[in-house]
Amino acid sequence: MPSIITCFSPALLHLEEVNKRTVVIIDVLRATSTIATALFNGAKAIIPVDNVADCIRIGKQIDGITAGERDGKIAEGLEHGNSPFEYSPGFINEKVLVLTTTNGTKLLHMALDKGAKDIVTGSFPNLTAVCDYLQQKNENVILACAGWKDRVNIEDSLFAGAVLNRLKNSFDPEGDSSKIAHNLYVNAQKNLYGFMKKNNASHYHRLTNFGLEKDIRYCLTEDVANVLPVYKEGKLVKE
Amino acid sequence: MPSIITCFSPALLHLEEVNKRTVVIIDVLRATSTIATALFNGAKAIIPVDNVADCIRIGKQIDGITAGERDGKIAEGLEHGNSPFEYSPGFINEKVLVLTTTNGTKLLHMALDKGAKDIVTGSFPNLTAVCDYLQQKNENVILACAGWKDRVNIEDSLFAGAVLNRLKNSFDPEGDSSKIAHNLYVNAQKNLYGFMKKNNASHYHRLTNFGLEKDIRYCLTEDVANVLPVYKEGKLVKE
Repeated sequence: MPSIITCFSPALLHLEEVNKRTVVIIDVLRATSTIATALFNGAKAIIPVDNVADCIRIGKQIDGITAGERDGKIAEGLEHGNSPFEYSPGFINEKVLVLTTTNGTKLLHMALDKGAKDIVTGSFPNLTAVCDYLQQKNENVILACAGWKDRVNIEDSLFAGAVLNRLKNSFDPEGDSSKIAHNLYVNAQKNLYGFMKKNNASHYHRLTNFGLEKDIRYCLTEDVANVLPVYKEGKLVKE
Repeated sequence: MPSIITCFSPALLHLEEVNKRTVVIIDVLRATSTIATALFNGAKAIIPVDNVADCIRIGKQIDGITAGERDGKIAEGLEHGNSPFEYSPGFINEKVLVLTTTNGTKLLHMALDKGAKDIVTGSFPNLTAVCDYLQQKNENVILACAGWKDRVNIEDSLFAGAVLNRLKNSFDPEGDSSKIAHNLYVNAQKNLYGFMKKNNASHYHRLTNFGLEKDIRYCLTEDVANVLPVYKEGKLVKE
């Protein structure tokens, strides 16, 4: 049986052989939820870049839509933010999105630097697509949580737990982090939003202060943008 | 209200200001459980060192008992292992133990290198002593889990959760790691040993393979060696 490792923080990624596993990049609030949504709504591709300057440059070169936030605001020089609600079909269909975020896109580039060959992105809005893909591939997996500036966060851990729970009959949970994530999810699954609120999760707190409860609720909803973003030749595209 | 941060791995310690908080070093299986036990049973002091060569040298200089394991066996050149059962009153009373372990003593030295001024060690056998001390001091705390070679582990996270649970009315749990640890403990508290077994925790698995179930059960038992080891001038002594 193949195994699933969970990595709670980019600062722990060096411990794992990401080049030998399918890597699921997880940044629930909100990068990977927004990536799934934009592709679901017809975006041609998403180019994840790890800094604002590259985002602006590439946006000009390919006539793409530039997006990204720093500390909850649209970064200077970019056009759009990280909210999945900005990327409706009428706006994003057939377009290319050039996206930079604080944690998720940075983690994706870390995985690439470590030789990852098979990268997809995961979030509650595309939970089933991710699980179906992993099940079909039937190979070792690493669930890589983006966290917040290298700190562990609840929502990415919950998503890892959700995948582990779905795949518990066909994959071994490897390492204590996988067991902790799975337990956390089983505990919280009846009401993920309520769990985030009750625990005053750091990101719940941050986004609620910006008036973004609606984003949080959406990003914790399963299968509302059920596509599989796969990384191919520098871009995330629908599989 | 002062706050409690939880750090799941030595590889995440750089994120925290350990010089501004009381640091609780946690290595439940088995370094910090053994430290509490040796002091409870009358040891004069424990000198934690981070490598075998220093352990041998200091042991000779002060005529102390050298102890330490690497990968579950007594390290070459040392006299004793990491099991709390080796340190009965008849053996350890009035002696000085020079101890090196894979994770716990290394983490303690990392905290010292980062300027920590107030260091104690925590384990289930001395849970109440640790909580009483933190409560009385009423200052910010960091619960520093030793993990296993920088990987997160269940038992250290459980102990962090136990402290958070005891002190929930007088400290703020700060950061998502504290919330995750607290949830894990609340979920497991009725039967910590059963929880470790059910989840086949990596360290449960490792020690059980060495025939050390008895050690695991002891190290998960509250207040059986209820002293407070504090770090003073290079040594851990009973407060």
